[in-house]
Amino acid sequence: MTQNTSTKVHVGILGATGFTGRELMGLLMRHSEVEVDWLGSESQAGCPYDGVYPQFLNQIPRGVNILVPESEVRDTIPDLVFSCLPHGASARLIAPFLKNGKTRVIDLSADFRIRDKIAYEKAYGSHGLPEWADKGEYGLCELNRQAIKNTRLLANPGCYPTSVLLPLIPLLRGGIIAASGIIVDAKSGVSGAGKKATDTTHYLNCNESVAAYKVGDQHRHLAEMEEQLALASGEKVSLLFTPHLMPMERGILSTIYCDLSSGKGEDEAEACLAKAYSQEPFVHLRSDFPRTGDVSNTNHCHIKAYQPKGSRKLILVSVIDNMVKGASGQALQNMNLMFGLNPVTGLL
Amino acid sequence: MTQNTSTKVHVGILGATGFTGRELMGLLMRHSEVEVDWLGSESQAGCPYDGVYPQFLNQIPRGVNILVPESEVRDTIPDLVFSCLPHGASARLIAPFLKNGKTRVIDLSADFRIRDKIAYEKAYGSHGLPEWADKGEYGLCELNRQAIKNTRLLANPGCYPTSVLLPLIPLLRGGIIAASGIIVDAKSGVSGAGKKATDTTHYLNCNESVAAYKVGDQHRHLAEMEEQLALASGEKVSLLFTPHLMPMERGILSTIYCDLSSGKGEDEAEACLAKAYSQEPFVHLRSDFPRTGDVSNTNHCHIKAYQPKGSRKLILVSVIDNMVKGASGQALQNMNLMFGLNPVTGLL
Amino acid sequence: MTQNTSTKVHVGILGATGFTGRELMGLLMRHSEVEVDWLGSESQAGCPYDGVYPQFLNQIPRGVNILVPESEVRDTIPDLVFSCLPHGASARLIAPFLKNGKTRVIDLSADFRIRDKIAYEKAYGSHGLPEWADKGEYGLCELNRQAIKNTRLLANPGCYPTSVLLPLIPLLRGGIIAASGIIVDAKSGVSGAGKKATDTTHYLNCNESVAAYKVGDQHRHLAEMEEQLALASGEKVSLLFTPHLMPMERGILSTIYCDLSSGKGEDEAEACLAKAYSQEPFVHLRSDFPRTGDVSNTNHCHIKAYQPKGSRKLILVSVIDNMVKGASGQALQNMNLMFGLNPVTGLL
Amino acid sequence: MTQNTSTKVHVGILGATGFTGRELMGLLMRHSEVEVDWLGSESQAGCPYDGVYPQFLNQIPRGVNILVPESEVRDTIPDLVFSCLPHGASARLIAPFLKNGKTRVIDLSADFRIRDKIAYEKAYGSHGLPEWADKGEYGLCELNRQAIKNTRLLANPGCYPTSVLLPLIPLLRGGIIAASGIIVDAKSGVSGAGKKATDTTHYLNCNESVAAYKVGDQHRHLAEMEEQLALASGEKVSLLFTPHLMPMERGILSTIYCDLSSGKGEDEAEACLAKAYSQEPFVHLRSDFPRTGDVSNTNHCHIKAYQPKGSRKLILVSVIDNMVKGASGQALQNMNLMFGLNPVTGLL
Repeated sequence: MTQNTSTKVHVGILGATGFTGRELMGLLMRHSEVEVDWLGSESQAGCPYDGVYPQFLNQIPRGVNILVPESEVRDTIPDLVFSCLPHGASARLIAPFLKNGKTRVIDLSADFRIRDKIAYEKAYGSHGLPEWADKGEYGLCELNRQAIKNTRLLANPGCYPTSVLLPLIPLLRGGIIAASGIIVDAKSGVSGAGKKATDTTHYLNCNESVAAYKVGDQHRHLAEMEEQLALASGEKVSLLFTPHLMPMERGILSTIYCDLSSGKGEDEAEACLAKAYSQEPFVHLRSDFPRTGDVSNTNHCHIKAYQPKGSRKLILVSVIDNMVKGASGQALQNMNLMFGLNPVTGLL
Repeated sequence: MTQNTSTKVHVGILGATGFTGRELMGLLMRHSEVEVDWLGSESQAGCPYDGVYPQFLNQIPRGVNILVPESEVRDTIPDLVFSCLPHGASARLIAPFLKNGKTRVIDLSADFRIRDKIAYEKAYGSHGLPEWADKGEYGLCELNRQAIKNTRLLANPGCYPTSVLLPLIPLLRGGIIAASGIIVDAKSGVSGAGKKATDTTHYLNCNESVAAYKVGDQHRHLAEMEEQLALASGEKVSLLFTPHLMPMERGILSTIYCDLSSGKGEDEAEACLAKAYSQEPFVHLRSDFPRTGDVSNTNHCHIKAYQPKGSRKLILVSVIDNMVKGASGQALQNMNLMFGLNPVTGLL
Repeated sequence: MTQNTSTKVHVGILGATGFTGRELMGLLMRHSEVEVDWLGSESQAGCPYDGVYPQFLNQIPRGVNILVPESEVRDTIPDLVFSCLPHGASARLIAPFLKNGKTRVIDLSADFRIRDKIAYEKAYGSHGLPEWADKGEYGLCELNRQAIKNTRLLANPGCYPTSVLLPLIPLLRGGIIAASGIIVDAKSGVSGAGKKATDTTHYLNCNESVAAYKVGDQHRHLAEMEEQLALASGEKVSLLFTPHLMPMERGILSTIYCDLSSGKGEDEAEACLAKAYSQEPFVHLRSDFPRTGDVSNTNHCHIKAYQPKGSRKLILVSVIDNMVKGASGQALQNMNLMFGLNPVTGLL
Repeated sequence: MTQNTSTKVHVGILGATGFTGRELMGLLMRHSEVEVDWLGSESQAGCPYDGVYPQFLNQIPRGVNILVPESEVRDTIPDLVFSCLPHGASARLIAPFLKNGKTRVIDLSADFRIRDKIAYEKAYGSHGLPEWADKGEYGLCELNRQAIKNTRLLANPGCYPTSVLLPLIPLLRGGIIAASGIIVDAKSGVSGAGKKATDTTHYLNCNESVAAYKVGDQHRHLAEMEEQLALASGEKVSLLFTPHLMPMERGILSTIYCDLSSGKGEDEAEACLAKAYSQEPFVHLRSDFPRTGDVSNTNHCHIKAYQPKGSRKLILVSVIDNMVKGASGQALQNMNLMFGLNPVTGLL
């Protein structure tokens, strides 16, 4: 993050004090083409950002370091606003920027990820900005590049969906697997539960324990995944999805069980994924099974496909860092794409 | 563990220095009806046990504390020998005790868990004691009680199988679920990987990372589970089984996806499990989804059954402590049963 | 914990839902001479205890399992009340039991640990039960046995003080070390920070990080330690004490730097400690340096004394489990002593 | 790390497969002015580096990715060789590069950190390259900048010494504290114990446990610290130094107890440190006490000085990431200085 140069992309961050805000700032510090204009916070306005997160001590220009109330920045016109706010609040607070006709928006909340109104409302309630509810482009860079380049409103994918859609979409598009009967068993680090101190995030409830939660049909990310998978397969998709909380800070591993199409097997699956991703800087096929530690603090997704002997099932294992490729890194990757920058700048 | 009383059950432990040996000794310390006669070790014979595991400092009578080579105890005739040795070595070293016609044996290795010779050899190679290979009783206490009471050779179940069979067997016996198409996605702590220092057990490879391993059809415990499930269902069973290594010491959580039989649902599944386990001191049905932390350092298994809305799948989540109910605690539970002791002694 | 037997010690637990309450219940489950009459809770009265802590599912008699408001038990007369309440609240709520002239009390809070009124008030504010403020016996079992046996009001020591006083008091009494210039650098697991969800106990603030807090002269346990050390040495003692928060659930390791008295060295220190503790079931001298893991989930304290070559300093390293020997286990040890029970019952 | 540009600094890495090698490569990936020519390894020559560390999958040019035996690179003449080898081996294998008269060397081992021959040999045995044994410049960038700029042989400081010397040297130079009686109680993550699988690094021995080791006068880093402190103070210095192993991957927190000079106090200490570091990009004074998590994965050192009320002691708390500022990050910082590059390139 360098300052004082007018040719940089000028950005503001709404909800900068949450975990995705912190992660995003950490990445932006390394990005040579960005200038952060302001850091917004509702609850900690007036506080120094490096007081909230001492990792930034003396790293941020003084004027930027003091958190500004989000009500005060609504009339600024940065090139780009990142929203790290919760769903609902996000739609309301990015409205002024969408309306100024110039600022582009990358929304890390769920507000614009689901175009189907009924599905959105079932998962998240009534929408905070109905007139834009179906205007966002879904920001899975590798699979939606053209639309992302030109959008003013980018819906950054959820963490679980990123880990699930990257392996599944090419296989569905290629007819390698069936759209029905897919089971996703996902494992996530605690950072996904957010910054708020709750019983769920208490050290003694997370440490040395694994828990299943929102089992089967209960997690909000289901609607997002099912919509994208339906778009890829051309038919309605119903997933079973069981997330688990792991005793670690970051990382998602998704183990995906699906049915191979007639005549298809592991080789076809690998070839299909290789074709989709061999030129991609951030998605990689593995010859062995990946660990989440292999991608910690990176924007990479590693995938392995495996067909058990004598079975017609295909098992996919994918890993990402939920805070980077699953949130802020992917947001930066989208920014690079939207502003015509080098795809890997800030993400090495 | 009290000493000097001849009415106690006199026991010896083969392979006392491994993790299951340590866990077993910790439990035996609290058991009022047992007297440990000797602790055997091949690699550390002559060393004090409380030097290997300082948690036992000054807790074990001096004569017992010094580890004895297993070659020297073969002519002793304790009431019971626990074998905490690896498979193969276990069968060979318990042979003298089986042959003395008096000593009973609880084998924590895999050597006598699988009666089908071909399945055993495929998983573990040639058997170390072929004449006894199909003579062990499978020690899942709650589901095989009568046979366990009278056996001289008890095959203590594997950790993963314990967590999988306790929820599945009653449902298969009761016709609630189908025997085909079962998928088990299991998560285990690192203690399951054993005491040996390897790349797998290096702190930096385990900590802050989740890994899938032996995916789908590759884990040795599959043969054990498939044999027991076939016995319960009366038909051949093929599982998909994917274990994962978690950044924690102990605990297994198994998430099991299976097909409900026609006309059956979550209610029937719960009723079936309640009938099987309502009088059991160590298996409990939960109304919410369990965490492994709920059963850490206990011999309990907690189970939750759930049918997603609109789905014909049943999702089962079970948790155990892999070192206790999945190994040494279950061994003690079997000992209590074999010797007519109070079922919960030493296990509270 | 067995029931229905009138010769058992009948106990009630105030503040049963905190971490020390949970730990105490876990230990009492294994104690053959105790019957729990009631479990008290202000905030969760009416809830089942095994709903708060599922580890107890189906383990506690139904009538005991439902948490009772502490206002409703004030007229019961159990043989013993354990108070696991915070300081201040503890003194107020145990008052009725002290006043009934029969019930004995073991207070796990700080309320009766410090007899010096000024020191108490400086650390904790005004006392909740002034007429009893100097009537508690300090419950460091090994070093205050006679007084503990007969007291009606037992002040259970703090976790840090237990780990510091056990090594220091015999050495001060024996004149081996100087009373001045002692530095304690202590490391604790997160359970010491209590059950409340706060920024301090958030997983992401604890995990993968070590922090110093209340450095040097700021921690409340200082007053407790200084009073006890002054009693042992016969002179005023000023410690420097720096606690640190470790990324683990339980355990305290205290590294203590002190000056050897003229003519004394490591040998005299070891001999002094051996004399004090060789007959004790729960305090042990180590020949190597202990890890907190060596005493996890036990009531043991391990100590090592070391004099660096060419130095007149003695370095002591002691480890305990802060929740057991540093809290609930020591409380049970005190109960055994107060009621003439076997010292190790419930603590193996 | 970009390639194909001759004006870059061309570097080779000896011992690339150890943890410091991995960390260094991770940092070099982000450095715009460096081109890696080869990665050396004795034990894994011929293997792909991204097979050893999958985090680098598809990130390293093919020719560089295959590890080369160190015997084959001795005649190459890169601008700079980093040695991540163990002491002893390091001196031997960098000899050819020192002798070619052109290549500069940054040695991350201990081989050139200690100029005093007797002190070196006592800690590490006989030297592998005696004629260069006292020719290295000690690479504590902030405090030895001029000498570093021009050296051909840079001795990169140890991890513990970095955390101890950064706070202490300015205070000793400034006469704020006494050179005698300093006690350092340090806490380190497990990465400091290296890549080798041993009982020490086994997950079950590290996790959920804190251990003191090499207590008081036993750690090899003592000689390095005492030499540097003697240079700063002009008098012989004897430290007491007790390192502790923490259940975390990375980070060192050093708690340092020292005596204030007559007339000096916390204010003078803070002013002295502020003067030394206010212009430094990587050393920062804190107003509160730092956590190691505040500097994880960064090259920063955070320091807090505190004088307890009524005491003449000064307590210093410093934190670094042992793998970055304590090893590979500081090596990169030294490279930037030696080659006249921007001090923060690759370290944001």
